Amino acid sequence: VRVNVIRFPTSAPGDTRFLHSLISSGQVNPRDIVALLCKTEGTGTPTDFSRELANDRYTRFLSERLSLSPSDLKKRIAFIFSSGCDGVISPHGYLFLTAEKDRRVLGRSKRLTIGIAGTPTLKPEEIGSKKHVLLVTEAVRDGMKNAFIEDPKDVHTVFVKSPILLGVSRRESESGRLEGHPKSRASSAPLTRAASALGVAVALGEVPEDQIKEEKIGQDPHLYSNVAITFSGTELAHCEVILLGNSAFAQSDFIIRHGLLTDLLDGEGVKSVLRKADLDFGCCPDEKTRQRVAAIFMKVGILPSGQVRGKRTTILESDINFTRHLRAAASGVVASILGEPEVFISGGAEHQGPPGGGVVSVIVRI
Amino acid sequence: VRVNVIRFPTSAPGDTRFLHSLISSGQVNPRDIVALLCKTEGTGTPTDFSRELANDRYTRFLSERLSLSPSDLKKRIAFIFSSGCDGVISPHGYLFLTAEKDRRVLGRSKRLTIGIAGTPTLKPEEIGSKKHVLLVTEAVRDGMKNAFIEDPKDVHTVFVKSPILLGVSRRESESGRLEGHPKSRASSAPLTRAASALGVAVALGEVPEDQIKEEKIGQDPHLYSNVAITFSGTELAHCEVILLGNSAFAQSDFIIRHGLLTDLLDGEGVKSVLRKADLDFGCCPDEKTRQRVAAIFMKVGILPSGQVRGKRTTILESDINFTRHLRAAASGVVASILGEPEVFISGGAEHQGPPGGGVVSVIVRI
Amino acid sequence: VRVNVIRFPTSAPGDTRFLHSLISSGQVNPRDIVALLCKTEGTGTPTDFSRELANDRYTRFLSERLSLSPSDLKKRIAFIFSSGCDGVISPHGYLFLTAEKDRRVLGRSKRLTIGIAGTPTLKPEEIGSKKHVLLVTEAVRDGMKNAFIEDPKDVHTVFVKSPILLGVSRRESESGRLEGHPKSRASSAPLTRAASALGVAVALGEVPEDQIKEEKIGQDPHLYSNVAITFSGTELAHCEVILLGNSAFAQSDFIIRHGLLTDLLDGEGVKSVLRKADLDFGCCPDEKTRQRVAAIFMKVGILPSGQVRGKRTTILESDINFTRHLRAAASGVVASILGEPEVFISGGAEHQGPPGGGVVSVIVRI
Amino acid sequence: VRVNVIRFPTSAPGDTRFLHSLISSGQVNPRDIVALLCKTEGTGTPTDFSRELANDRYTRFLSERLSLSPSDLKKRIAFIFSSGCDGVISPHGYLFLTAEKDRRVLGRSKRLTIGIAGTPTLKPEEIGSKKHVLLVTEAVRDGMKNAFIEDPKDVHTVFVKSPILLGVSRRESESGRLEGHPKSRASSAPLTRAASALGVAVALGEVPEDQIKEEKIGQDPHLYSNVAITFSGTELAHCEVILLGNSAFAQSDFIIRHGLLTDLLDGEGVKSVLRKADLDFGCCPDEKTRQRVAAIFMKVGILPSGQVRGKRTTILESDINFTRHLRAAASGVVASILGEPEVFISGGAEHQGPPGGGVVSVIVRI
Repeated sequence: VRVNVIRFPTSAPGDTRFLHSLISSGQVNPRDIVALLCKTEGTGTPTDFSRELANDRYTRFLSERLSLSPSDLKKRIAFIFSSGCDGVISPHGYLFLTAEKDRRVLGRSKRLTIGIAGTPTLKPEEIGSKKHVLLVTEAVRDGMKNAFIEDPKDVHTVFVKSPILLGVSRRESESGRLEGHPKSRASSAPLTRAASALGVAVALGEVPEDQIKEEKIGQDPHLYSNVAITFSGTELAHCEVILLGNSAFAQSDFIIRHGLLTDLLDGEGVKSVLRKADLDFGCCPDEKTRQRVAAIFMKVGILPSGQVRGKRTTILESDINFTRHLRAAASGVVASILGEPEVFISGGAEHQGPPGGGVVSVIVRI
Repeated sequence: VRVNVIRFPTSAPGDTRFLHSLISSGQVNPRDIVALLCKTEGTGTPTDFSRELANDRYTRFLSERLSLSPSDLKKRIAFIFSSGCDGVISPHGYLFLTAEKDRRVLGRSKRLTIGIAGTPTLKPEEIGSKKHVLLVTEAVRDGMKNAFIEDPKDVHTVFVKSPILLGVSRRESESGRLEGHPKSRASSAPLTRAASALGVAVALGEVPEDQIKEEKIGQDPHLYSNVAITFSGTELAHCEVILLGNSAFAQSDFIIRHGLLTDLLDGEGVKSVLRKADLDFGCCPDEKTRQRVAAIFMKVGILPSGQVRGKRTTILESDINFTRHLRAAASGVVASILGEPEVFISGGAEHQGPPGGGVVSVIVRI
Repeated sequence: VRVNVIRFPTSAPGDTRFLHSLISSGQVNPRDIVALLCKTEGTGTPTDFSRELANDRYTRFLSERLSLSPSDLKKRIAFIFSSGCDGVISPHGYLFLTAEKDRRVLGRSKRLTIGIAGTPTLKPEEIGSKKHVLLVTEAVRDGMKNAFIEDPKDVHTVFVKSPILLGVSRRESESGRLEGHPKSRASSAPLTRAASALGVAVALGEVPEDQIKEEKIGQDPHLYSNVAITFSGTELAHCEVILLGNSAFAQSDFIIRHGLLTDLLDGEGVKSVLRKADLDFGCCPDEKTRQRVAAIFMKVGILPSGQVRGKRTTILESDINFTRHLRAAASGVVASILGEPEVFISGGAEHQGPPGGGVVSVIVRI
Repeated sequence: VRVNVIRFPTSAPGDTRFLHSLISSGQVNPRDIVALLCKTEGTGTPTDFSRELANDRYTRFLSERLSLSPSDLKKRIAFIFSSGCDGVISPHGYLFLTAEKDRRVLGRSKRLTIGIAGTPTLKPEEIGSKKHVLLVTEAVRDGMKNAFIEDPKDVHTVFVKSPILLGVSRRESESGRLEGHPKSRASSAPLTRAASALGVAVALGEVPEDQIKEEKIGQDPHLYSNVAITFSGTELAHCEVILLGNSAFAQSDFIIRHGLLTDLLDGEGVKSVLRKADLDFGCCPDEKTRQRVAAIFMKVGILPSGQVRGKRTTILESDINFTRHLRAAASGVVASILGEPEVFISGGAEHQGPPGGGVVSVIVRI
């Protein structure tokens, strides 16, 4: 399988012009597109409709190009839109392309590969449950097969977009369910991200399946995946999985590597992953080295105490959502190292990396 | 006891000029002040420091005037600052004055009276617990005694300012305590308001004490007080109670009445309370009648479904705190009836009025 | 011409289900639709993409139903999306339908009529200019013709959606154009609304054309229209006009009336317009009378001093956009009178109604 | 003169406990305090009262310790409170101490020195004017004298806190003064910062006085200071100046150095200043080297285009104030280099550093 990744800027959430020009110019054959991952701009809260707008526009654009119905398109291409460009994050997207899929052709070395998969639709009461975890586990295993990956060690990033519980209001979460629905969940956004992350962890053997207990989901920070980056959203009712790794069956100019972040300020963790990906540099990558970085993906979190390096921050006490502070601060950390504001950062790291930390991965051109 | 109430505008949270002029001009003897209730301006979130600023400024001002230490002052005068002037709420305050306290003098009819009281300091783990409820119950009973009220029916408003759990971060509430503190509470602001409201309800016989179970606090909307208006704040560690009612032992130019609001749009509920207070008017009070309204106090809530009159609203789904929408919308309802933006409105009606509704009271000049 | 208006709830900005059911059930012939006006939910700021999402969804839905290209559809149907459901505003929309267009049929009395029109695309430097004003004037005159209205007195509401200056950043407005573009405008959203409102005023003879001077646009509050309700948006580059009035050539079960609001609290102004529309009620309309109100449209503003009835408010000093406070407070005023949260309210009344006031109109079933 | 600087954490804007313990333990003689600079937490908008609360608490605390009236205290100690701890900024403060003031004692090498000064009260119409500029110029020259600095090259940071125009509403700035006050300024916060920055630039010879023209203030980004860090605030009516530099007359364990930032991502600019301050390190300072950094002060801005390194950001288009994004992103840049969240960052760099860039300075222990 030949795998390619293209990063592109967007002038608005629904801006498909770059994709249009890639296809028009012949640089991209739309039949090769397997996944689209975009950072859209908005508040990142439930009333941020940038994700849905982007989803609509790209779906329509590609449906027309591929003469597919939207539902057939969705079976063929995985879409993940993550909102929130706080700080210096420049709104942008990634196009993942594969061609000449044939397992028999074995490359000389492991190269970037991609597998997409999805769970069935989750019932509202399943969101955040052990069943949710195990459905994601299955989907991740499918993704590995699609990616021609056998060894879980070759998986370097698993994006999972997960549904949130519609009709569970913020008030319920804040006031303790005054209407007395004992089973409605405190807040489904962190919980759905948590369950999906544990699903990845189980699939890759990072957390044994028998440790997944209902009451630990979203609760026990010592259970975590090293490669999961999960999102919550209102635009879907199942989980969508994009799995990235390296495979000997892949032919690509790229490899992917990952690492952990110990906390929000772990610039060294970022550099360390860049170096793992065969980039050789002094303090920070120079212009030429930077050009080789096709993508950087990060998920960042914070300790429940709100502290970073033992110092109090206001991240969890502010009038704006804590994920906005996380994304904005992390954008400074990583964009200043890379000299590049097109960085993919997501906040809210439930079971994604160690407590108070996060995960990071890079795709680098060989 | 002679009781008086004075409403005054403020140009900023820490503005004591009006109080200064009242005292300088001899209109107010600072020794007669028993309570100060202010609506300060800010986001109404935990990082809104307008309450603390106001508390500092008024404490200092009155300490100097009365030659009392701040702690002795606090024993003598109850301070409640409630933040959030969303919509057309004009920042303002109320001064409650009593003089010639002597129980033997019985007036001809029941008039406005006030009693202040406080609970002991609550331990963090007691906030929102049954113990919290019962300590408020005791304080409310003290307040009744101070107000020379025997019949709970003569109590028309009980303000309770309650502490919130310091060091329990928003993240804990949102993400389900990833650090694994099973006993920390999801979100202490609604919970502390809920426990205080039930404390009022028990003291006044609105809810039998034996119905107060730990798991119903903040949960069962069918348990509620008709007169409680409770607040949460970071500026105190105990509960502060200001109880208003009518007493035959009070001499005053004012009476107070209360009523319930069925929902956020219950303008008729507001008018009904005005009429109970002997105001006679057609559709809306005319200028002369309005002049007799010394104060209007409201607490408004919303159903967990976020619906009002069967229609969806975005109050609970917005990027800003739901109490901001509640205060702002209610300010339009009541200020348009009274033709007056100096209205005291608080959002978040846990156990205060019927589910989705709220409570309202008015002080009217005879 | 037979004219009809249908109000419908939406469960999200892109929710076309109600429209779908109206058409599927045969209640609405899509060929009769001439205009769609929706209140979408979002922050109401430039990064609120609910308008674009709604625009996309309705365009696609109706394009398919009418077998028209999106651009042909736009020539036939006017779309206006106004964002911001602060307070108790329930997200909803209005469908305007006309059929059997034939000027020769003269009805017995003047009934609801509608005319749609548009300006050519405005160049960025024309936005907010005198040219903008005059282009809107022309479009409004076209709208009158389309609506079979001859006397400007029969025009009761003119909605104008106007483009904002793309690429003029908020920073420019706040910091005084540090990059030294002397001609870029301080902030184009209020300015584009202002120019469109004056365009309406000139067309209807409310303001003489010779009083329109470049420096008065957005500046002189004494020039205003009594019927303009204007919006700014990023989703178009020209002005879109929906004009509503009464015409003897219209056959309809509805009439429309309008009035002015003296300020944000002018509930009497609202009632007065309801009464002008032949509704007979005491203090507030009863259930039966309410059923006859098909629509209420309001634009509300505030004095630059931020005062309402001589009292300070924080509307212009808050951390959130002032239009959010305006919409939320006004929603309480009008929804409590009508007992109905489906009310169309827009904030920012440049040249729309008297200084500090606004305009209001109602469509009522005969 | 012996000069010392102490950085301390705060648990809330009004938290004086650290200062209390420094004095109680004898580490600090309150008579030696000449300036207090704090980063308080809040929205950073005009309704953020954290600055006033902090100002009150520290004033009262030090007035009592020094047996001075608040006004006498203010003559002796300069207070600057800057709000906004977005991103990972940990709320904290700096205490500047001087003792044994005697110009005759000449040290061997130039060491950290401090001078404080103030302008007279500015009239509202003077804010942002050329007069404002020149009054700051005079104050800065006073500050240099107080600091025993003769050569402007020895000045490394000049903090100026400047008043904003009270009673000029946000609406005026957004809608172009609908009430027709031609002289009120579009928005006084950036303008007051701009005028103060130019005042510093003139005093230090960075910009010739004859280039200061009314219409260039806040407009011409090519006029700028290399060392000014200016703030706007509601808590004062004059400009307060804290000037930091190195002087041969100062005895101190510290030196100060400064540099420019080319843009928000200029981590190298930060490192370059650390190296100028005699810190020797590889990529990032190690733990031991970090311990020598007593303070880092930054002012960051952005191009009016909203672009960083040629890429679009949403900093100027967001629903939240642009300074929040600037502070948050910059906090990641600098805190990750220093491994320390107690960093002093301010957003909005009018005439402070090159267009789109900013200024940075560090105080380092010898």
